[in-house]
Amino acid sequence: MDSLGVLFLSELIGTAMLVLLGCGVVANVALVKNKGFGGGFLMVNFGWGLAVFAGVTVALASGAHLNPAVTLGLVANRTEEFGNPDFGTVPVGFLSVIAYIGAQLIGAIIGAVVCWLAYKQHFDEEPQPAAKLGVFSTGPAIRSYGWNLATEIVGTFVLVFVVIGFGRQGDASGLAALGALPVALLVVGIGASLGGPTGYAINPARDLGPRIAHAILPIQGKGGSDWSYSWVPVVGPIIGGLIAGWAAIPLLPLIG
Amino acid sequence: MDSLGVLFLSELIGTAMLVLLGCGVVANVALVKNKGFGGGFLMVNFGWGLAVFAGVTVALASGAHLNPAVTLGLVANRTEEFGNPDFGTVPVGFLSVIAYIGAQLIGAIIGAVVCWLAYKQHFDEEPQPAAKLGVFSTGPAIRSYGWNLATEIVGTFVLVFVVIGFGRQGDASGLAALGALPVALLVVGIGASLGGPTGYAINPARDLGPRIAHAILPIQGKGGSDWSYSWVPVVGPIIGGLIAGWAAIPLLPLIG
Amino acid sequence: MDSLGVLFLSELIGTAMLVLLGCGVVANVALVKNKGFGGGFLMVNFGWGLAVFAGVTVALASGAHLNPAVTLGLVANRTEEFGNPDFGTVPVGFLSVIAYIGAQLIGAIIGAVVCWLAYKQHFDEEPQPAAKLGVFSTGPAIRSYGWNLATEIVGTFVLVFVVIGFGRQGDASGLAALGALPVALLVVGIGASLGGPTGYAINPARDLGPRIAHAILPIQGKGGSDWSYSWVPVVGPIIGGLIAGWAAIPLLPLIG
Amino acid sequence: MDSLGVLFLSELIGTAMLVLLGCGVVANVALVKNKGFGGGFLMVNFGWGLAVFAGVTVALASGAHLNPAVTLGLVANRTEEFGNPDFGTVPVGFLSVIAYIGAQLIGAIIGAVVCWLAYKQHFDEEPQPAAKLGVFSTGPAIRSYGWNLATEIVGTFVLVFVVIGFGRQGDASGLAALGALPVALLVVGIGASLGGPTGYAINPARDLGPRIAHAILPIQGKGGSDWSYSWVPVVGPIIGGLIAGWAAIPLLPLIG
Repeated sequence: MDSLGVLFLSELIGTAMLVLLGCGVVANVALVKNKGFGGGFLMVNFGWGLAVFAGVTVALASGAHLNPAVTLGLVANRTEEFGNPDFGTVPVGFLSVIAYIGAQLIGAIIGAVVCWLAYKQHFDEEPQPAAKLGVFSTGPAIRSYGWNLATEIVGTFVLVFVVIGFGRQGDASGLAALGALPVALLVVGIGASLGGPTGYAINPARDLGPRIAHAILPIQGKGGSDWSYSWVPVVGPIIGGLIAGWAAIPLLPLIG
Repeated sequence: MDSLGVLFLSELIGTAMLVLLGCGVVANVALVKNKGFGGGFLMVNFGWGLAVFAGVTVALASGAHLNPAVTLGLVANRTEEFGNPDFGTVPVGFLSVIAYIGAQLIGAIIGAVVCWLAYKQHFDEEPQPAAKLGVFSTGPAIRSYGWNLATEIVGTFVLVFVVIGFGRQGDASGLAALGALPVALLVVGIGASLGGPTGYAINPARDLGPRIAHAILPIQGKGGSDWSYSWVPVVGPIIGGLIAGWAAIPLLPLIG
Repeated sequence: MDSLGVLFLSELIGTAMLVLLGCGVVANVALVKNKGFGGGFLMVNFGWGLAVFAGVTVALASGAHLNPAVTLGLVANRTEEFGNPDFGTVPVGFLSVIAYIGAQLIGAIIGAVVCWLAYKQHFDEEPQPAAKLGVFSTGPAIRSYGWNLATEIVGTFVLVFVVIGFGRQGDASGLAALGALPVALLVVGIGASLGGPTGYAINPARDLGPRIAHAILPIQGKGGSDWSYSWVPVVGPIIGGLIAGWAAIPLLPLIG
Repeated sequence: MDSLGVLFLSELIGTAMLVLLGCGVVANVALVKNKGFGGGFLMVNFGWGLAVFAGVTVALASGAHLNPAVTLGLVANRTEEFGNPDFGTVPVGFLSVIAYIGAQLIGAIIGAVVCWLAYKQHFDEEPQPAAKLGVFSTGPAIRSYGWNLATEIVGTFVLVFVVIGFGRQGDASGLAALGALPVALLVVGIGASLGGPTGYAINPARDLGPRIAHAILPIQGKGGSDWSYSWVPVVGPIIGGLIAGWAAIPLLPLIG
């Protein structure tokens, strides 16, 4: 397989892993009769953070973006190559950006489908359509597209800006099997600190992919997929990621 | 002692440590009058994850499988040797596989017995037989053998696939005393994200060993050991581990 | 830009990041309708700890004090240079101390403003003025300036004394992207263990900066900014940091 | 100062730090009006684990035992020298063992006194004498000296056995400022998994030192110091530590 094919598959598998475990923790906490039902927001934060840990671990070949906001943020940061020097790299360009984002979106759909299978009976017994949709996609605590967008921009800015900081501080793979820990901890923190108003999508693929899965899958008693909100967790993270990438250029000397 | 004897003892002690601490956190949360009673599912997730941390730390000689699904997943992954180059290795074959799985099962029984002793009075005062069995073995939130099996397959696939990814990313022992941290964090995450429907056995020895202990021990007011369900947390993890091992072969170039 | 300018900007951005995420977790837990509402004190502890993690990560150029108590504690410890040898250092003196503390205070104000924007609607819908102020600044559980001061002194002593210990144990940047983890864990621990009586400011900029923001911002239905208490989380941490810096000089041989 | 004096002071300061933060988290969770009141057992587990993290960090010079059960377990393990090669070592013998244990006990008393000062007002307002004693020392959930002793033996065996395993896996100080993390995580896990019946003293100094402080300090409305139970958390950990040290000798080849 050529390099771009490898990177495509790497992003796809990593994002599927991320979304399987990320949507999984929400299913555990939100769907009736689960052993983790009502487990609290901190449990959701750790679940998503460790989903990042697992997803990044199996996608180091592609640099483990797993998120279009990271991919576009790196473009804005004038990164010249995607991938991992140990596995092969590709030049940044229209084709590679499309390949990364496409793989992320397809991977997110697959992860959401597997999550639904793993929690099939709990979806069937859950009476509230909103709880079912909430496993797949984020929704606002107080609906107001402008402010919801602002919250997603801030959260994604933090994610991409600090991730660029990690990259500056040395090759994460030098930490071997703990290389995915910094970004995992960062996502636990962003969830706890900025996840209150919108449920912290901070990743267009993580939100849109499962929403597509929700629309397509034969989920018993499901309601609508809330398409009227769906653009917020896509546009907000893209804006936040681009700003972070641009801002990091002059600020790079400050980032250890 | 020859190498296989050392590896046998290493797996046995590591699995006993794993099960002592893992069943221990469930006892703390589920049995009346404990200081951690009602401590929540996230506490159970951290308890099992840190049980893995302790168990792996004392079993690095054998490579710390502590789980037949890991052992069989490595066989499916065409691993040629079990063990740790620093301590001696054995070729993978019928004898070594049986030795590993036998040690894991015996270790799990021992760990469960010690856990019962540490929580003896709380078992005596606990009125519900189901709570007592729940300390030893997993059970489904909604009983349905097919779907329960599916959940265990998915959870164990994630475990074994990511563990193989860790192995590819460098010698965990290079991190010295933190070498067991990646798999510990992974198990916290799998528990939070995929533990809702079945309580995440994801390890045949962890479930069958304590179930045997439950059947044998003179526990006051115990009920049945739910043998009708007992095959699910054995067969599901084996299938998930084998699939993960096979799938990792073509996907290895993707795993950092 | 000259070295002092770089260090100023580094401290400013790091402290803004710290306060954005730190105040954010309090907003999530304390303001109505948030997804993390009522998430508990442990969630607040992890949120602030991981806020430190993110803030330190983007401010390694300046050594990531992010806290006047750390800056003054290092002065008391007879540190000769501020900054990071990889990025440029400045001699410790009146000018550099003022630059560090000024940057921390301005950064804290900016972080608090962004936090308010991210949680704007939840501030608007929150009925209790005290909950709004609590997002910005700390307040005592039982008001008693003397004892509150004592608690802040003890908490900040622990922070600065152990941070000096970290510095003695090797260059944190040697751990690459995990270099900020030790101090993050320390702050989780101080919050859980010493945060009960006063909410652990342990940082004059973290408390005074957001209090100034609270006083200035057009927050709907806000009450007073509790200026009568405001000197406690400034003076207490300064005293605790100075004592820790002085005490560490003779005790340095004991610190690994 | 000679080597033994340095080691004495190092153990004293480390144990004081451990007990200050460890007793502190119990005070936060158990005494009325605290911000962490009712924070749950997992918060106590993290608080004690991170207390170990801070305590070990400031006592690497002496090898950071901070616990007579560790000191005696190492004697049983036929350790020849105490201390840290980078700071000076002393031969294991009657004098050094007494110096270590004495320093640990004095440090624990000091830590408990400072904790009482930091939480002074909450002690004053707490109506229940048992809650006040619970901040200082452990007590059984179900009183039965024999079974309580068994639980403490098991918990301390796990602590000392795994700590010896860490030592075998490389110099923790090679991880610089994260060197104290493995034992901190271990203590979080032991607390969650084996802390239910007795509150996991697993350290004679941690229990006896604060109990002495409780007896001496002029705490308003305090009850008795429960001396009838006080031998259990001293004798149990000593037995558990000795067994772990002895058992590790033949089992050393198994420990990675």
